[in-house]
Amino acid sequence: MSRYLLKFGGTSLADINQIQNIASRIKVISDQGHELAVVVSAMSGKTNELISMVSEVSADYCPEEYDVIVSSGEQVSAGLLAISLKKIGLNSRSWLGWQIPIITEGVHSFSRIKDINVNAINITLKKREIAVIAGFQGISSSGRITTLGRGGSDTSAVALAAALKADRCDIYTDVDGVYTSDPRLVPKAKKLNKVTYEEMLEMASLGAKVLQTRSVELAKNKKVRLQVLSSFNNVSGTMVVDEDEILEKEIVSGIAYSPNEAKITVSGVSDKPGIAARIFGPLADSDINVDMIVQNISLDKKTTDLTFTITRNQLKQAINVLEKNKDNLGYEKIISNDKVVKVSVVGVGMRSHPGVAQKMFSILGEKNINIHVISTSEIKVSVLIDEEYTELAVRSLHTVYGLDEN
Amino acid sequence: MSRYLLKFGGTSLADINQIQNIASRIKVISDQGHELAVVVSAMSGKTNELISMVSEVSADYCPEEYDVIVSSGEQVSAGLLAISLKKIGLNSRSWLGWQIPIITEGVHSFSRIKDINVNAINITLKKREIAVIAGFQGISSSGRITTLGRGGSDTSAVALAAALKADRCDIYTDVDGVYTSDPRLVPKAKKLNKVTYEEMLEMASLGAKVLQTRSVELAKNKKVRLQVLSSFNNVSGTMVVDEDEILEKEIVSGIAYSPNEAKITVSGVSDKPGIAARIFGPLADSDINVDMIVQNISLDKKTTDLTFTITRNQLKQAINVLEKNKDNLGYEKIISNDKVVKVSVVGVGMRSHPGVAQKMFSILGEKNINIHVISTSEIKVSVLIDEEYTELAVRSLHTVYGLDEN
Repeated sequence: MSRYLLKFGGTSLADINQIQNIASRIKVISDQGHELAVVVSAMSGKTNELISMVSEVSADYCPEEYDVIVSSGEQVSAGLLAISLKKIGLNSRSWLGWQIPIITEGVHSFSRIKDINVNAINITLKKREIAVIAGFQGISSSGRITTLGRGGSDTSAVALAAALKADRCDIYTDVDGVYTSDPRLVPKAKKLNKVTYEEMLEMASLGAKVLQTRSVELAKNKKVRLQVLSSFNNVSGTMVVDEDEILEKEIVSGIAYSPNEAKITVSGVSDKPGIAARIFGPLADSDINVDMIVQNISLDKKTTDLTFTITRNQLKQAINVLEKNKDNLGYEKIISNDKVVKVSVVGVGMRSHPGVAQKMFSILGEKNINIHVISTSEIKVSVLIDEEYTELAVRSLHTVYGLDEN
Repeated sequence: MSRYLLKFGGTSLADINQIQNIASRIKVISDQGHELAVVVSAMSGKTNELISMVSEVSADYCPEEYDVIVSSGEQVSAGLLAISLKKIGLNSRSWLGWQIPIITEGVHSFSRIKDINVNAINITLKKREIAVIAGFQGISSSGRITTLGRGGSDTSAVALAAALKADRCDIYTDVDGVYTSDPRLVPKAKKLNKVTYEEMLEMASLGAKVLQTRSVELAKNKKVRLQVLSSFNNVSGTMVVDEDEILEKEIVSGIAYSPNEAKITVSGVSDKPGIAARIFGPLADSDINVDMIVQNISLDKKTTDLTFTITRNQLKQAINVLEKNKDNLGYEKIISNDKVVKVSVVGVGMRSHPGVAQKMFSILGEKNINIHVISTSEIKVSVLIDEEYTELAVRSLHTVYGLDEN
């Protein structure tokens, strides 16, 4: 007998019919004799509907009341799944964040889980009652409803799996696992049986939106064994595990890409200490997140160029900020480009295998793809290239690192 | 400075625009310096939408989860009204049943309020923060969400008005008060400025669905001054008050009618002690509510007839029950009629004025309207007549008791 935490996203709970399908699926696992806690998101589209009502009242909404309103989506789906389970003969009840309680801290609408008291749920699980838990929500120390930010149900699931000491946390979604690349872009992409937390983190932050980044970090810290799998079929998914669990480490596990990039070059800035801080300070103050950064080597030792990337929808705002501070920064001109994409090679194995980056640069050179910016971490190499080469670059890299499906 | 409890029904909160109108209306009262607690129903149509989702899963639903799901409607409207109040500069917050807490007892979906702890709300009211309270809901002693049955928000409002010692409980609805009769049926019906709890109770249970009966009973017991008024205009409504507050008591305050009646006559039953109990026992066991009852005087001292009324949609079931028990009851035959209506003359003044019933019988006789059954209480006389005479009877009575608007 094992104890599992199952989490179902909104697309798995789109209507009553799907909720009943999920209930049947849970019954199969329950009938095998396992203890089950289930975390649910709101029914597909519901959260957006609630948010739009809040926005209709006021653009600068009150986050405390936003949480009261938006958390009702998970309240309804938890109740509906609990009834569906009862209907097919399973003992079950719904749990809301405040009932457990899941105590949170931090500001409303973006709260963080501080503590979970699982005593009551532990008792019911041992009695083989299925706990259907509303994801995304908690309660503040002052007794008000809080929410964890978009996609927060993944975090609820992982935190509960850790607190309940579940043997595994299964995240049911509308894809059947983590792939070596985006299958829409790379037809030969194949599903990974295992991936490490670190790789998953790099992939998630690079645009493969299978899991909320926070939930992966939490799983890594709490050593929660995660599985990503589809609620629409019965094939096994991808296990997200600790590096130690993967004996034969792939040098490269996947090729990720992030399409919403823009590049800014600030040229002719005087090459003095502190210039980077003076440029990036005002951008940070305006909540503009800077990703890759390259500072050219100054040949004349007087002026230099700084190139960096940001998300595309912040480009206009970033240029505005820089222009407003022109006198203080003393640059010559700003050059921007929003037709760029970031392509990354990710794999924990590259730590012990030099030459991964070199292989990447070679193949891109062979294909006449120009590299604008390079950045590297322990387990990934990213390059910024022209958008029009996205498919060619990602497919070529997928082939050259041996990831194509046979 | 006074303290008011304002209650807004679903039709007053049909969309965001209306919620904002209600907020403006509350601002006018708040700006006069009063302390305000506001109870809200779910947005119009929302409760039915949630109930239909529950029904879609299972006909014999689980009442605990029904309460979790259906209570979310008031949660959303409370949050939206609180934001709307904040937007126009009023200090405000939402309160859910479990946050106050409103402790209930009895079965789920039909719970009764047992206790309300108003300490926290009292503190915020004194700080001139408007408490926006989700109606219809509470929390059980085991910490689960409960609901009070359809129309329960009226009961929430009255119970909170009593607990908060409010100077008045204003029930905003889509009619502007209590009328001497149904204005759709009697064009000359006029609005009553005052009505007693007892009259209101008789009228509510006789089909004038302005207030939930339980809420009127509670108001009577707790001596809560109730006002029924419209949220769509600014005219004053009807005060529901203690009899002592009405100096010049009208002999008759209103003519009510109840269209969903059916009549059953069980004829040729042996005239022995205990026969009534033998007939009504099985009906009560089947949850069939019997209203008016007449037992004919037995002329031959051997057999008699029993006539009684029930609600129309239970007629078939009632006949079934009687036929199943035919051997035991030993009657000759059953005669039924579902084309009947109950018309009632209501007024606390009739206690001290004999002749009210006689006047009723006379006018009905003059109009050739046959009376099937008569029943009386201290403050009302009801007759059962053929459905086709409804308008004629109600209008004639309205005129003869001097209720027509000048």
